[in-house]
Amino acid sequence: MAEGARLDPWEPALRLEYDKLFKYFGVKPFGEVLDRVRRVFGEPHYLMRRGVIFAHRDFDVVLDAYERGERVAVVTGFMPSGRFHVGHMMVVEQLKYYQKLGFKLFIVLADAEAYAVRKLDRREIIDVALNEYVANMIALGLDLSRNVTIYFQTNYEREYYRLIQMLSRKVSMAEMRAIYGELEPAKVVAALTQAADILHPQLEAFGGYKYIVVPVGAEQDPHLRLTRDLADRFERELGLRRPASTYHKLVSGLDGLKMSSSRPDYAIFLTDPPEVAARKLRRALTGGRASVEEQRRLGGVPERCVVYELYVYFLVRDDRELARVYEECRGGRLLCGPDKDYAVELLVKFLEEHQRKLERARNLVERFVEPPKF
Amino acid sequence: MAEGARLDPWEPALRLEYDKLFKYFGVKPFGEVLDRVRRVFGEPHYLMRRGVIFAHRDFDVVLDAYERGERVAVVTGFMPSGRFHVGHMMVVEQLKYYQKLGFKLFIVLADAEAYAVRKLDRREIIDVALNEYVANMIALGLDLSRNVTIYFQTNYEREYYRLIQMLSRKVSMAEMRAIYGELEPAKVVAALTQAADILHPQLEAFGGYKYIVVPVGAEQDPHLRLTRDLADRFERELGLRRPASTYHKLVSGLDGLKMSSSRPDYAIFLTDPPEVAARKLRRALTGGRASVEEQRRLGGVPERCVVYELYVYFLVRDDRELARVYEECRGGRLLCGPDKDYAVELLVKFLEEHQRKLERARNLVERFVEPPKF
Repeated sequence: MAEGARLDPWEPALRLEYDKLFKYFGVKPFGEVLDRVRRVFGEPHYLMRRGVIFAHRDFDVVLDAYERGERVAVVTGFMPSGRFHVGHMMVVEQLKYYQKLGFKLFIVLADAEAYAVRKLDRREIIDVALNEYVANMIALGLDLSRNVTIYFQTNYEREYYRLIQMLSRKVSMAEMRAIYGELEPAKVVAALTQAADILHPQLEAFGGYKYIVVPVGAEQDPHLRLTRDLADRFERELGLRRPASTYHKLVSGLDGLKMSSSRPDYAIFLTDPPEVAARKLRRALTGGRASVEEQRRLGGVPERCVVYELYVYFLVRDDRELARVYEECRGGRLLCGPDKDYAVELLVKFLEEHQRKLERARNLVERFVEPPKF
Repeated sequence: MAEGARLDPWEPALRLEYDKLFKYFGVKPFGEVLDRVRRVFGEPHYLMRRGVIFAHRDFDVVLDAYERGERVAVVTGFMPSGRFHVGHMMVVEQLKYYQKLGFKLFIVLADAEAYAVRKLDRREIIDVALNEYVANMIALGLDLSRNVTIYFQTNYEREYYRLIQMLSRKVSMAEMRAIYGELEPAKVVAALTQAADILHPQLEAFGGYKYIVVPVGAEQDPHLRLTRDLADRFERELGLRRPASTYHKLVSGLDGLKMSSSRPDYAIFLTDPPEVAARKLRRALTGGRASVEEQRRLGGVPERCVVYELYVYFLVRDDRELARVYEECRGGRLLCGPDKDYAVELLVKFLEEHQRKLERARNLVERFVEPPKF
């Protein structure tokens, strides 16, 4: 079994984008630190092992700090628009891993950006943040009572807002345009806010310096670059340092394009009624051949199969089981029909269990995060 | 005595600018509401009587509200850069008037803007805000313990920051450029912050709706127009309404150009040692003629005299006394030498008294405003 193949089931266009990150922007392959992860953290996260988390910046710095017993934290943000899907879940899976290791978590509910840039309704944003995002985090097993700061961008501490104001001094419109194109004021504010989301945990008011890692989708790297530059520019004045980051691949939608709440037919939401999710999954793009005969002869192509991708991301947690499915598909012994039956079975089971937990979780939400008053 | 002449001692270039406000932007002459001010408030402020406050928007709305017994407030801001001079004093004189009438005061210390846009040192900004601006307000007789909210932009309530974020949604870069020219991110943030400074007192979190008046220098009207537009756009969602505004003329420097802390030789600072201030004043531009003989024959021109302007702004509080000086100058009986002796005498007396109060005031500053921690 070719590890590179098994662990890299993504479409060529996206892979080219990922290659650019290495080539032009100095992001490093995650594979290079995997052994050190094993020594320092113990077993790597399954998304690290499977190459879904495929790149990083300065993750070795965080490993060193962790080894020395220094304070470490993870920062991540959720845009509370639309529903919580398996792409979001992948981030929560990473948070759970870091939480077990003793990292402090900072979780941003990006309601300011959802309101000002995406122009969503404010009440709806708050409702979605609580009942979709926070509830799903809890149901997925994240312990929000344990060393976690979770906040709405519009309802936080003054030192955070002060940082947004201060950051604005040392960035030019030209730099911002290079990243975001032509900018409206809302986007300027949102970009500075996002930089503050990542950098503020280092400040005295938030417990003092800690090493930061930001797990993001690969397309988020430009934000990270800007934030790292800002950290450099405020190192002397505020003691800020560059955050580390890891990059994961994006979950494909069931049609092979990007998974997004705005295309609900091709996304698996964690609140989908199991029979609805099953129906969507049955229509998913696979790596099957033109005919059964051909597939028996040539084998399937899991690298181009959305169903297989879901195994990798969350449906199959056991690596040996994953390898077995991969081999059977490649060998032409597992055809798309029975494979989908298997995937549907796993998915329905997962959703049923998850949704039971979700019901309980919804009652806990306001215990952990204070929603803004309006 | 021509009232128009006595009350309007400003250079023609500036007067043209002022005329534009009436002609193109719908600002109204303050003279039109002066009688109503007298009926509703009682005696108008001396700067209203003397035409220094020369224009307004919607001041009649505030008069109506006051008459009906509704809540009213004044909002004003100080940029804590440089030292407190007689231009700043003029604003404090207005605040005292509104305070006596029962208006709530909101006083902004614009430290975020001083830091991000003017790029001043943060510690110095805070020090100047407290020891120059707040201390002088107290020494001038403003009672900061009485229905006043005074705050640093970087150290305020979350609902204020939320408003900044929300305002960003409904303004375009094109609108901002039309006012400010090409914009850096710092200026975008500062402009939105300034709009929030003016509008936030209407929010529930700050005591609920109140009618707002903003006394500003005439050159500030573009900000006010933007803020009024934003109020309209958030009327339905946040219940915001257009603030009223009054416009005062700018204090000239001792050379006849604009008074500014950046040209200290031509400004009168309230912390100038009296002998230093006296020396500067003796060099001030007057409306004198080429020779004593000519001045005796033709009379002086108080309209072009910086010394006379200082009488109008603060040195002479009695209107009859002011009229006497005006007539004697115009009639050629009061020459510039003796006139300056008189002005210096008044100024030295004022500064000596003020600086005694200032010493006591400096110890009270932190009782009324909480400085940011860094």
